[in-house]
Amino acid sequence: MEVNRKMTASKEEEKTVSHRDEMEKEQLINRLKRIEGQVRGIQKMIESDRYCVDILVQISAINAALKKVSLNMLGRHTNHCVSDAIKNGNGEEAIAELMEVFERFSKS
Amino acid sequence: MEVNRKMTASKEEEKTVSHRDEMEKEQLINRLKRIEGQVRGIQKMIESDRYCVDILVQISAINAALKKVSLNMLGRHTNHCVSDAIKNGNGEEAIAELMEVFERFSKS
Amino acid sequence: MEVNRKMTASKEEEKTVSHRDEMEKEQLINRLKRIEGQVRGIQKMIESDRYCVDILVQISAINAALKKVSLNMLGRHTNHCVSDAIKNGNGEEAIAELMEVFERFSKS
Amino acid sequence: MEVNRKMTASKEEEKTVSHRDEMEKEQLINRLKRIEGQVRGIQKMIESDRYCVDILVQISAINAALKKVSLNMLGRHTNHCVSDAIKNGNGEEAIAELMEVFERFSKS
Repeated sequence: MEVNRKMTASKEEEKTVSHRDEMEKEQLINRLKRIEGQVRGIQKMIESDRYCVDILVQISAINAALKKVSLNMLGRHTNHCVSDAIKNGNGEEAIAELMEVFERFSKS
Repeated sequence: MEVNRKMTASKEEEKTVSHRDEMEKEQLINRLKRIEGQVRGIQKMIESDRYCVDILVQISAINAALKKVSLNMLGRHTNHCVSDAIKNGNGEEAIAELMEVFERFSKS
Repeated sequence: MEVNRKMTASKEEEKTVSHRDEMEKEQLINRLKRIEGQVRGIQKMIESDRYCVDILVQISAINAALKKVSLNMLGRHTNHCVSDAIKNGNGEEAIAELMEVFERFSKS
Repeated sequence: MEVNRKMTASKEEEKTVSHRDEMEKEQLINRLKRIEGQVRGIQKMIESDRYCVDILVQISAINAALKKVSLNMLGRHTNHCVSDAIKNGNGEEAIAELMEVFERFSKS
């Protein structure tokens, strides 16, 4: 099972995973850096009084990009954490959690 | 009518509006700065191998925050640009554009 | 202004509109009859133990068809009821209601 | 593995499942009958010229009800078909299909 728990400085419990390799992490972080840049771009559009519809189209693009990251991550999560749980006989809980995330994602 | 067009350095036409006052712009930019910080937070979560579901919940929160910005902006756009177009007899085009934005928004 | 109120048998107030002509009403009703047939089709799929994914794809098609009807209706509502309200100086309330419907629609 | 294929009259291949018991099927069908009734209700609202926003709110309610059926079915699909595939070493394909369904669902 790939999910570990560690204690952070703040004594809060943080779950970690070990299935993301360096290349995958780099790709995800690069995608998020691009999204961060897009969010900064919206700030500049507002500063320069750009037309509402042009800004709204850009925000939709950011949402779509974030959803792509989420779907990618959902797929990997199911392939690793959920699959492992199922193989280890703890599938039910992992699937219930997956469905909750699905529902939240589909409404956001 | 509040929509203007100006030529940019790149010769591209950029529509601008004049209905956003300084306070409104500041509020929008502050909200987007917070969202930018949340996107950076996701990057850190990936760097420290945080559990997929915890990351996915955070991404859903960003999507929800962006949608709130969009809805706020859609409302102001309708109250200003679309209303003005309707009063000036150019409502049909402005409403068609609004519906397009709305469709895009509802799918993103 | 196209919105009227009438008292129903149950004493409940029901708002009506007069901007839908017979052809438009027929088209909308035909679309909804097709959707009704699709919902019955799902019932048959369940009765005959059809594969979950095939059923889920059909349900997504119904959702998409309903959203198309909604978008069409939203456009006509904005072109008629909201436009009239704006022209009569009651735009603010009509737009607030439109935004509420937008938000509800985008989450459903 | 619970997925079977049978040849229909039209020679089309139809996948079936065996994990839905009679009670579950009845519940699903009852929910869909209620949704069918709601779709008929919208037709009556259009016939009697009801206010657009009131109709739109009802359509959103149908979409929400259909999404609930979908989520319920997605959960059972994952607990049965996907779990079985994972246990039998065919997880990857089943998960790819699940992600596709999920993407379609989140956009509809």
